[in-house]
Amino acid sequence: MKKTHIDDDWADGSEADLPHVPYSPARYTVEEMLERSQHFYTMMNQRRSVRFISPEPVPRAVVENVIRAAGTAPSGAHTEPWTFVVVSDSETKRKIREIVEEEEEINYKQRMGDKWVRDLQRLRTNWVKEYLDVAPYLILVFKQTYGILSSGKKKTHYYNEISVSISCGLLLAALQVRYTPAHTHTHTHACTCTDTRTK
Amino acid sequence: MKKTHIDDDWADGSEADLPHVPYSPARYTVEEMLERSQHFYTMMNQRRSVRFISPEPVPRAVVENVIRAAGTAPSGAHTEPWTFVVVSDSETKRKIREIVEEEEEINYKQRMGDKWVRDLQRLRTNWVKEYLDVAPYLILVFKQTYGILSSGKKKTHYYNEISVSISCGLLLAALQVRYTPAHTHTHTHACTCTDTRTK
Repeated sequence: MKKTHIDDDWADGSEADLPHVPYSPARYTVEEMLERSQHFYTMMNQRRSVRFISPEPVPRAVVENVIRAAGTAPSGAHTEPWTFVVVSDSETKRKIREIVEEEEEINYKQRMGDKWVRDLQRLRTNWVKEYLDVAPYLILVFKQTYGILSSGKKKTHYYNEISVSISCGLLLAALQVRYTPAHTHTHTHACTCTDTRTK
Repeated sequence: MKKTHIDDDWADGSEADLPHVPYSPARYTVEEMLERSQHFYTMMNQRRSVRFISPEPVPRAVVENVIRAAGTAPSGAHTEPWTFVVVSDSETKRKIREIVEEEEEINYKQRMGDKWVRDLQRLRTNWVKEYLDVAPYLILVFKQTYGILSSGKKKTHYYNEISVSISCGLLLAALQVRYTPAHTHTHTHACTCTDTRTK
């Protein structure tokens, strides 16, 4: 690949000449694989979507480890198109709750339609999200629909929504491994809204 | 909620009267949380997207545990809009490889455009997917864009792509916990194609 041919987003090109790196993962016996996979399933299967959340404190370092784990997710063309924002300040949490509840009330009352509201009835959810005030931390997840290069040009983020969602799967796994019940609501939606406003 | 008011997809309604179930997760000390979250991050951080895969056999029960873990993911209105298909038969794997390579060649040569091809150059990928023949198992992930009710009517699957992607995050975590290097390529795309054909 000649550098002179590159006029695109990512145009460093220096990485193209790197050799493949052999991957030598730790190896397990059949028995260990069975036991580890069974144990992980059992642990994940105890996760629940919880709408009543304890206010008791969690060390910030644990939240950071959990987000680091989420950040190991694969992503389209390795763009890592996610931003995780941790909020612990009461006033900011309150404002976020207000914004989310306002958006959700619109969802329930008009945006999503009667059918959506009826479909959700069995889950007994509504637009009141008390837990947003109560939880010691909120982890806001933003998708970066594009990046900005040093040249100021936009950099395409392929499959950004899929990539961020995979990352959220790892986030939930990490939270469950250390046993914080986590709650996901229409936030991916709410985040998208917020995203649009702030980017 | 009166049942007579329900004329929608999910209209059982019996679940609406169930009480909330208290959640009592196992509890860890601060030290345990720190250690567990650090350990999980370290383990996830050793995952790589691998394009050369060992043919050595893996117990089917391990693959099943991994998929069970993926199936614990949260999903929009708890629709669980995913289908995991495990393929070990050589002939079927070969046919899948042919379909995927054909689609990918179109991606590289016309569908995705020159920019996409250039952006991927640094990753040195192409449309040849030898590993699809070599891996002992292929796990195909399909998103169910809608479900079918017993009445034959369609059931809406809210946020189906996000839900399936979160589930794939758990799948990758489960694979990594038992240390199979996994590879994700443009498959979510390829799966969508296949999905369209088969559903």
